[in-house]
Amino acid sequence: MKHTISVEVENRFGILARIASLFSARGFNIDSLAVGETEDPTISCITMVVPGDDQIIEQVIKQLRKLIDVIKVVDLTQQDTVERELVLVKVSAKRTDRAEIMRIVDIFRARILDVHPFSFTVEVTGTEEKIKGILTLLKPFGIKKLVRTGKIALSREGKTG
Amino acid sequence: MKHTISVEVENRFGILARIASLFSARGFNIDSLAVGETEDPTISCITMVVPGDDQIIEQVIKQLRKLIDVIKVVDLTQQDTVERELVLVKVSAKRTDRAEIMRIVDIFRARILDVHPFSFTVEVTGTEEKIKGILTLLKPFGIKKLVRTGKIALSREGKTG
Repeated sequence: MKHTISVEVENRFGILARIASLFSARGFNIDSLAVGETEDPTISCITMVVPGDDQIIEQVIKQLRKLIDVIKVVDLTQQDTVERELVLVKVSAKRTDRAEIMRIVDIFRARILDVHPFSFTVEVTGTEEKIKGILTLLKPFGIKKLVRTGKIALSREGKTG
Repeated sequence: MKHTISVEVENRFGILARIASLFSARGFNIDSLAVGETEDPTISCITMVVPGDDQIIEQVIKQLRKLIDVIKVVDLTQQDTVERELVLVKVSAKRTDRAEIMRIVDIFRARILDVHPFSFTVEVTGTEEKIKGILTLLKPFGIKKLVRTGKIALSREGKTG
């Protein structure tokens, strides 16, 4: 089971290293991690996707809460959230494939950011499932390069977190 | 000066902690960091935005290259790249403000993901400048919550990296 954990931290030196080390010292892997400033530039939010059963994740969260500069830790997995990830993908686009690729991009409400004689660079945002969907369709054309942000999430209105 | 560094790593246990620790041990801050799998699930790509002058960043890159499980390190700052970041923002939306917020969302090609009686949740992707632009316009309505992925980037066709 994968958990999405949101960690609000004071935007101070070394906090990311301490959090990553806490996971690595306990033998936990991190599938994805995204960190950036929040609406308050002195506070950053780290969104992590971590595999593990509920009990183990609960222990990790308790330990995260003990770290200096950690303000708030929320396991978003059980909550009603809006989740998104951003992927940039450079896909081979021969002349004869272009119309088909553009159709796929349209269907997934993705965007072509850069066009070259033999490739398109495409921006996609969506849930894990949607991104998996478009990548499955683009793969046969040849994926030359792919970079993704990792998931971020916001709880829906009226919910905590 | 801010540098955008892309680090390709073997998708192995503890590599993120080692990289974050390398920065923190040398007193470098990381403004944003995004990590996720690439087109090859055994390889992850870490995109970091790091403040510092060219000489210092060059030293850090040399040290990154020495780490086990690091495959490739590229400073994308001097290259011609496509850069994007994803932001989810929950903005207060009183009945009388809704039309205006929707106009701003349209102008920035952003998307409303969730609507509640008193708020909208908006998804925006773009360059740092574009995101700064929409946030400046949304701020007066009241930003209730904001989470961002940090920047990711792909070099344009024909360029290395």
